[in-house]
Amino acid sequence: MLEDGWNTEPFKLVEKEGKLFGRGSTDDKGPVLGWLNVIETMQGLGIDMPINMKFVFEGMEESGSEGLDECLEKYKSFLSDVDFVCISDNYWLGKQKPCITYGLRGLSPFTLEITAPNQDLHSGLYGGTIHEPMNDLCWLLSQLSDSKGTILVKGIDKMVAKLTEEERSLYAKIDFDLEGLKTDIGVEKLTSDDPKEILMRRWRQPSLSIHGIEGAFSGKGLKTVIPSKVIGKFSIRIVPHMTPEEVDKAVVAHVTEVWKSRASPNKMNILPMGGSSLAWLGDFKHPHFQAGVKAIKKVYGVEPDFTREGGSIPVALTFQNMGKNVMLLPMGASDDMAHSQNEKLNVSNYVNGMKVFAAYILECAKI
Amino acid sequence: MLEDGWNTEPFKLVEKEGKLFGRGSTDDKGPVLGWLNVIETMQGLGIDMPINMKFVFEGMEESGSEGLDECLEKYKSFLSDVDFVCISDNYWLGKQKPCITYGLRGLSPFTLEITAPNQDLHSGLYGGTIHEPMNDLCWLLSQLSDSKGTILVKGIDKMVAKLTEEERSLYAKIDFDLEGLKTDIGVEKLTSDDPKEILMRRWRQPSLSIHGIEGAFSGKGLKTVIPSKVIGKFSIRIVPHMTPEEVDKAVVAHVTEVWKSRASPNKMNILPMGGSSLAWLGDFKHPHFQAGVKAIKKVYGVEPDFTREGGSIPVALTFQNMGKNVMLLPMGASDDMAHSQNEKLNVSNYVNGMKVFAAYILECAKI
Repeated sequence: MLEDGWNTEPFKLVEKEGKLFGRGSTDDKGPVLGWLNVIETMQGLGIDMPINMKFVFEGMEESGSEGLDECLEKYKSFLSDVDFVCISDNYWLGKQKPCITYGLRGLSPFTLEITAPNQDLHSGLYGGTIHEPMNDLCWLLSQLSDSKGTILVKGIDKMVAKLTEEERSLYAKIDFDLEGLKTDIGVEKLTSDDPKEILMRRWRQPSLSIHGIEGAFSGKGLKTVIPSKVIGKFSIRIVPHMTPEEVDKAVVAHVTEVWKSRASPNKMNILPMGGSSLAWLGDFKHPHFQAGVKAIKKVYGVEPDFTREGGSIPVALTFQNMGKNVMLLPMGASDDMAHSQNEKLNVSNYVNGMKVFAAYILECAKI
Repeated sequence: MLEDGWNTEPFKLVEKEGKLFGRGSTDDKGPVLGWLNVIETMQGLGIDMPINMKFVFEGMEESGSEGLDECLEKYKSFLSDVDFVCISDNYWLGKQKPCITYGLRGLSPFTLEITAPNQDLHSGLYGGTIHEPMNDLCWLLSQLSDSKGTILVKGIDKMVAKLTEEERSLYAKIDFDLEGLKTDIGVEKLTSDDPKEILMRRWRQPSLSIHGIEGAFSGKGLKTVIPSKVIGKFSIRIVPHMTPEEVDKAVVAHVTEVWKSRASPNKMNILPMGGSSLAWLGDFKHPHFQAGVKAIKKVYGVEPDFTREGGSIPVALTFQNMGKNVMLLPMGASDDMAHSQNEKLNVSNYVNGMKVFAAYILECAKI
């Protein structure tokens, strides 16, 4: 194993036991190449393309899709005759059964900065005499959610869409293997033992994650420093009907109030970062989704699950707001470990995924 | 200003406005060079060295002095005829008046590790469904000390030596400029407004500092990751009569108890790190210290303060335990910013410090 937890070189594609390992193999170089291979193959076999297709490739999706909305606005007339949008940047719910995705969470990221002295200080010379910023920051970060991950920011729960009976019935149909999930990621206990509750927490409930701290000592070993300026990074995955504007307001108010009770002389600054996005819910009753269903049935012989996803792809909502029906058609499986060590794409998912893409093209022509 | 907060290249010595800027200028290349310059100068001037001197140079003092004690043990017979030990690895209490130092705090460093999933996870895909290690770690770190820095570990306060009237009277003589200190380091408020109380907190009270977290995102910008294994680094500066063994026991017991109340399914591991050290208190009534006093009087024309220091130099105690009288004779001033950005040594401190060293050599011969 390499020092960073990878078993192979991240930027070299390695095929092993039916899996393609490498950074971006499943998120999202595999699916992108898949689409291009399908077109090349159809051309090679002399099959007439039965629909017109336009591609939008972007390289900043993991960095807030900077400039993408502006670009789409600029090329609006070029895209004006597009009816359906298909995005392949998500995963199956499990490892066996394909799915089609009609919903995504949005994102509200924040920085929480505490500053005190002009510069880092020696913990021997100053420890005990100043109010240390890391002490304040750890405490403040601990006031954002409780031990079960429930968000403590006042008002957040009231923003979340109520669960209707119709929506509840959608969850009843989905078979979700909690034990398999726990084994895959290596945790003994999830925040609920009920698979439906876990799906709801992922799909229709907000969640708060603390990603890390900038400015403190982060290396191996010990450095007896008092860091002078520390910046906590956290984000909230948001769901209907939350808006980043309302979430920003609630978080700033909560942190400001909690900070007051701390009575620290240090400076605190809570700031919404750029790159926030709304949640997206697509119209899955549209015939476009049926083209996806038929394509999957043709290749895999099963009816796909209709799923939502916990991640965020802001451009889905942008396209929908441009009047297009948007569908997410995934290639990879749930254990592909996007964004993590040993990211992979199964060869079978890659090959069958391309077949699904081809079948989808043919089905779209029939709408 | 460079990105890391330095105004000049740290590893290039830059003289500016009477100050020598560079990493190690005051801690501890300046004083080391100073001693060598004194010997070279005395030889150049044909002055007979009136005492025998043996030097111990080490390069691991900032990394727990690994191997130093073993080395001194090995060369015990070589050092057996040494009567006095002088270490120049500390600072004046302020910026104007020299001092001699007779006490140091010790150090008990710890790692606090929380692990859950096998690997880092995507906060969109897993946020809300697992118990996040960073959430647990921030909370645990916030349970070590309160907003004023008071250590919450049970039993620590009882280990601290009681303040005697004799000791209290020593503080009465020391003139310590709190306002100057606040301006130098850029904080508006210290943990006390009483200069004597601040000195006691630095010299004779334990303090706890959180240095940082290994394993979480520490870069600029945002990474929407759930870190799987996060390691908090903190340390306690210890004072008489605390021992690292007792402190380790108390910290492990406290963290274990607090962790239980959290009821998290994640794995917690609290571990004392290597490199702990006892506090040191020297015999400042010994004639050896008078040699230092006379040397300082000769060069600066003032009686030096007798101070203790908040930092740790474990070898001071090692030498004392070998039966030698140990004294700390500093060269630099309080605003030299050892371990921090823009570390400097005043040219005047460098030059006068060397004169003090030379005078000290001559005074030692008279003992």
